[in-house]
Amino acid sequence: MYVIGERINGMFEDVKHAIREKDAKVIKDLALRQVRAGATALDVNVGPAVSDAEGAMMWLVETIRSVTDAPLAIDTAKWKVMSAIVPRVPGDKVLNSTKADPDIVARYVALAVSNNGGLIGLTLDANGVPGNVEKRVELGAQIITIAMEGGLQMDKLFIDPIILPVNVAPKNPGHCTQAISQLKAFADPSPHFLLGLSNVSQRCSNRGLINRTYLAMAMAHGLDAAIMDPLDTELMDTAITASLLLEKMIYCDSYLEAARHGQGG
Amino acid sequence: MYVIGERINGMFEDVKHAIREKDAKVIKDLALRQVRAGATALDVNVGPAVSDAEGAMMWLVETIRSVTDAPLAIDTAKWKVMSAIVPRVPGDKVLNSTKADPDIVARYVALAVSNNGGLIGLTLDANGVPGNVEKRVELGAQIITIAMEGGLQMDKLFIDPIILPVNVAPKNPGHCTQAISQLKAFADPSPHFLLGLSNVSQRCSNRGLINRTYLAMAMAHGLDAAIMDPLDTELMDTAITASLLLEKMIYCDSYLEAARHGQGG
Repeated sequence: MYVIGERINGMFEDVKHAIREKDAKVIKDLALRQVRAGATALDVNVGPAVSDAEGAMMWLVETIRSVTDAPLAIDTAKWKVMSAIVPRVPGDKVLNSTKADPDIVARYVALAVSNNGGLIGLTLDANGVPGNVEKRVELGAQIITIAMEGGLQMDKLFIDPIILPVNVAPKNPGHCTQAISQLKAFADPSPHFLLGLSNVSQRCSNRGLINRTYLAMAMAHGLDAAIMDPLDTELMDTAITASLLLEKMIYCDSYLEAARHGQGG
Repeated sequence: MYVIGERINGMFEDVKHAIREKDAKVIKDLALRQVRAGATALDVNVGPAVSDAEGAMMWLVETIRSVTDAPLAIDTAKWKVMSAIVPRVPGDKVLNSTKADPDIVARYVALAVSNNGGLIGLTLDANGVPGNVEKRVELGAQIITIAMEGGLQMDKLFIDPIILPVNVAPKNPGHCTQAISQLKAFADPSPHFLLGLSNVSQRCSNRGLINRTYLAMAMAHGLDAAIMDPLDTELMDTAITASLLLEKMIYCDSYLEAARHGQGG
């Protein structure tokens, strides 16, 4: 499981405050705790209310890089910020993210390839999030095709079928798992399939329970990456146990501990 | 989710002791607690070490019937016991279980139909548990076909692809979910798909975690029934939440409580 730790995001009050005050300790601490909990990579998002997004992003990147070599998922919707930051990120990086419109995908693929980075592609176009499985599959296939043409290796591409909250879009969890199943058969080798997991439970009660139950269900259909909270131990335990049940590791009595000290399952 | 409560089984020490001492209170208590926790039906198994299996089974049936009308899953591998008991069970019942050999299936189907009962069919023949998906699908299809020919309604048939412990048969969890997916497309209307869930974690550490993670994964592939422990609250919460994510219920903030007081999700 490729776990991208979600916690370094200006939407969280502690991170928002740390960015404003340039409090490096809070950021370093969140980076280390997530990696130690089994995160493969770390998402980096300055949040919505920042005047100098580029400067804030670069400060976060440098602060995190001072404590870990984990891949960084540069999370911004602004091409200007993405294209300025990515060439300056030392070590492994993932561009988070591109929409599915062909011209936009091609531009992001080129930026990813020229900087040896990964890319998250959303099955989303100018019309918004698709309301059915078919359109998700069509947009996912489009991203995969353009990425291949642009020379991006499939193990560096993450297709995100976009999960919406179950309380407002009840058909959506099923649409995402079906889209993953179908897209999995589209390319060999296959890209990764990723979700911004916590979104499934936005404004719901029992958020942890909904998140970990859906994670297991989606993994059963081929999800192998997620932007999620690695500090949620029950969620990480579910990810590791689902990997065990998918035969991605062999059982031993201490399989949880073994996986946590490895790659997060 | 059709939850068959597993706790009234002579393999458990409290039940074994209650059968020997004819301690009705223990049995009534287990029956009521399971139903209140959301069990749809109750498994009834005298366990291996009983001299008068037929007498013990009938005592259990009558004891449970004195407190609940829930369907009873008469759980015995002995045809002699099954054929003697089933006509004497008041109310709803399920025969648990038949193997897939054609002659045996036909005999169990006839007994189920003539007593208005359900039937659990194992994808297992004289050669034992299949080591692959294909044989499970073949045997499952065979049971479905014979059940249809014998006049058993599909909503009274439960196909059990047989889950083995993940520590000794690591490919098995994947085989079962794939077999369910494939068999689901075989008949319309479809029979139920069931697992003896706890078996996946036999002699493993983290049993509860493995059980509930696999339950969510299997439900994502079409599992809609399980012999399991409804007194395991985390497991029941997972079953209910997976049902929510499969759009079998609509979200409200108290969806867990609502489902628990209904049909167990």
